[in-house]
Amino acid sequence: MDDLLPGMLHLVRDGGETLTRQLTDQLRGLITKGRLAPGQRLPSSRELAQSLGLSRNTASFAIEQLAAEGYVTLSAGRRPVVAEGLSLDRSKSPPRSGRGGGARIRVSAWASSLQRSVWPPIHKERPRPFQPGLADEREFPHDEWSRCLRRAARNAPLRRDRPINHPPLQEALLRHLVVHRGIKAVANQILFVPTAQAGLALVANALLEPGDHAWVESPGYAGANVAFEAAGAIVSAVPLDSQGMVISSHKETPRLIFVTPSHQYPTGRLMPIGRRLELLRFAEATGACIIEDDYDGEFHYEARPVAALQGLAPSPRVFYLGTFSKATYADIRIGYVVVPEALIDLFELAQRHMGILTSITIQDALAEFISAGAYLGHVRRMTRLYRGRRDRMLQALATEAGNRLAVETPAGGMQLLARCRPRTNDQQLSARLLEAGVVSRALTRMLYHKTEERGLFLGFAAWNDKEIDQAARILGRIVR
Amino acid sequence: MDDLLPGMLHLVRDGGETLTRQLTDQLRGLITKGRLAPGQRLPSSRELAQSLGLSRNTASFAIEQLAAEGYVTLSAGRRPVVAEGLSLDRSKSPPRSGRGGGARIRVSAWASSLQRSVWPPIHKERPRPFQPGLADEREFPHDEWSRCLRRAARNAPLRRDRPINHPPLQEALLRHLVVHRGIKAVANQILFVPTAQAGLALVANALLEPGDHAWVESPGYAGANVAFEAAGAIVSAVPLDSQGMVISSHKETPRLIFVTPSHQYPTGRLMPIGRRLELLRFAEATGACIIEDDYDGEFHYEARPVAALQGLAPSPRVFYLGTFSKATYADIRIGYVVVPEALIDLFELAQRHMGILTSITIQDALAEFISAGAYLGHVRRMTRLYRGRRDRMLQALATEAGNRLAVETPAGGMQLLARCRPRTNDQQLSARLLEAGVVSRALTRMLYHKTEERGLFLGFAAWNDKEIDQAARILGRIVR
Repeated sequence: MDDLLPGMLHLVRDGGETLTRQLTDQLRGLITKGRLAPGQRLPSSRELAQSLGLSRNTASFAIEQLAAEGYVTLSAGRRPVVAEGLSLDRSKSPPRSGRGGGARIRVSAWASSLQRSVWPPIHKERPRPFQPGLADEREFPHDEWSRCLRRAARNAPLRRDRPINHPPLQEALLRHLVVHRGIKAVANQILFVPTAQAGLALVANALLEPGDHAWVESPGYAGANVAFEAAGAIVSAVPLDSQGMVISSHKETPRLIFVTPSHQYPTGRLMPIGRRLELLRFAEATGACIIEDDYDGEFHYEARPVAALQGLAPSPRVFYLGTFSKATYADIRIGYVVVPEALIDLFELAQRHMGILTSITIQDALAEFISAGAYLGHVRRMTRLYRGRRDRMLQALATEAGNRLAVETPAGGMQLLARCRPRTNDQQLSARLLEAGVVSRALTRMLYHKTEERGLFLGFAAWNDKEIDQAARILGRIVR
Repeated sequence: MDDLLPGMLHLVRDGGETLTRQLTDQLRGLITKGRLAPGQRLPSSRELAQSLGLSRNTASFAIEQLAAEGYVTLSAGRRPVVAEGLSLDRSKSPPRSGRGGGARIRVSAWASSLQRSVWPPIHKERPRPFQPGLADEREFPHDEWSRCLRRAARNAPLRRDRPINHPPLQEALLRHLVVHRGIKAVANQILFVPTAQAGLALVANALLEPGDHAWVESPGYAGANVAFEAAGAIVSAVPLDSQGMVISSHKETPRLIFVTPSHQYPTGRLMPIGRRLELLRFAEATGACIIEDDYDGEFHYEARPVAALQGLAPSPRVFYLGTFSKATYADIRIGYVVVPEALIDLFELAQRHMGILTSITIQDALAEFISAGAYLGHVRRMTRLYRGRRDRMLQALATEAGNRLAVETPAGGMQLLARCRPRTNDQQLSARLLEAGVVSRALTRMLYHKTEERGLFLGFAAWNDKEIDQAARILGRIVR
């Protein structure tokens, strides 16, 4: 053995790897391949060093490393021994390469259900008109933002005691929400989460028990449906009239109601005060909670934005959900939830258990961006820009598609719903548009009750006039 | 009415608010307070403008805003009418202020259980010795990092097609993990999540069905227990011997096994290759999956770090979990999971459904930080520094506490376990230390089976020699 082992090793003196590493790796390889058998004695590190012409240290380090990893066993005054039980019996193992290998892993029912989910729509390519949900990030003051971010990162060492939700951002955002959205809260009711979707999951997990009923709008935002279903709830689709969700006493009493009162998703309709109060009275009477998703409430084109439900509610049962990804840029990955004051500690604990925390560096940069007025300035500039684009879009669609599409004028937001004739195959239409380079979302993908409504959901905010006109021409050609 | 209304309004011409806004807010107030009754006719906007001495536009905007919000109803050629159904019947409502108000909200069983959870330990104050889990952030190259971050933020507009997991970071991290941790994977098997805890929740939700069995180490990391319990699993605590988890056939067959083989949490022990292979064989035989949490595997002090389980596994059933929060700084909020290749698409969909996405700007900054060598340079420097601090800590504890504490020398990582005599009240001891300014975690808080083991979990990485000596003196005084 003392003679054999050196012949099995091939150390390269001017290779990229140290001799210690080469020796360790090669010995480990001989053991795992079975060329050095369990129980076999190895030379001592002194003998090994001599026969290989290495320093004693090099050989010792290698042997000790293998002992630390458990490949060899050391005992005082004796030569190292190859450890027992190191075979994995690979003959029985499936091949580990290829996509088939992992298919044997049984996933949960929830994970299986994801494969059938139509949410979220994923466009892996560069965004194209009229992909909904996008802000025009070309207009965002990236330079100013990157200065805020750098400053916040440089100041990080000064912030050693760190709550998970940054008080300066809570205060800056609260001032904004009170003035512009009519929120009634104290600053630490605002919790920051990586995405609005994580905020939905947070509220759903904290309130819903398996078997509870939850109401969503139909048509509506499927992200709510999937969050509630993941929490085990039975989701009921509630149809809309011109004022929004039709509060019906026919359905099972809900534990949680999801609404988008500022600009209903996807119709863009504003829920008037009467329906808002009706909804709040219903929640009071039944003990239901409400998630008010104000996803793009910043952008309102007809008069001023309407005050949020949260500020109207007589008791704290509205969870106000917002995001910075529409009013700044999608990649910022900061959403927020305004929770009832009595539940702050519980929700912060839930954030930690779910691991949905966001960087204080980014929260601090955002606090400066808001406090310096850059946020409101950007929102105001974008509101003017997007209003113009909405009007351009309405005009372009009227010109190109005429009476084939009935377009609802949205009161605000970044997208609109163009209704097709009943029973049109809007998914097929959307697929044909995609082939021609125009992105849309079929209304039937957002409907959860039986109806003959059909349409296309189209984003206008991220595209300039030329892009809008061009894409409208393509759309017109295809719908005619 | 035409005469009455002006008397109810008090507009200030050089106030901070525009006249339109004052008029709208005051009219809305009169309606919500019931001073203008449902069904009551208001003056036309022309009449209102005249009687108040306002421009016609100002009065029109106010009336239209209230109509948009639903407070008044407009019909062609007629005067505006106060809308019906605007009362909330506040007499029946509870007061909305105070922490008692929200207590009426019924939360889920999971949310209730959080209030009894001892995880995570939360220290709201400035970190103090020997708080476990902390890196020395004073040593982190914040300036270099902030330059990477700024550059990444400025380049954001150039990145319009954005996968949720950034390929340049996947590639940079993979090169690091292959060389330093023995991972076998392709780059897009690496998914980035806001925290390691979110990574645990991701794997738990994707694999566990309610009633499934999951194994955790005892003592061990409670974040795994809570993630598995949240997914409905029955968690079994598996005791350790000197090699780590004792694989027993007495317990129910697990669906998922959580281990920390690099430096067991909290004992700091390394799982030798024999136990690693035994665990892998057991997983193969039973169809179980393994989460290998390599939370501080970067810092290894005896010889080289041992190769990860993930790279040894004969088939893809190991989920390798890591975080940048130990090797960079806690606030970076980027964890990662290496998932089996066949499950990449499913897990990315699960990330979207759970909303656990992280900013590509940060991912891009981190890719540059790694590629430029700054990451490895920092890890190497910290490894030398932390090894010295570990040794200082061992020495200081021996001097100050003598045989009252039996300290295990950890093979790596940022903390160590100091065992007390059996049946010591380690929670009381930890509380007394906290009063004296020394933070620790009682071993019994991390034990999930019946045993007389007692001890204190102490972090050494974030403290310099002087801080270590001072805190050890306090600790010595209290344990003696």
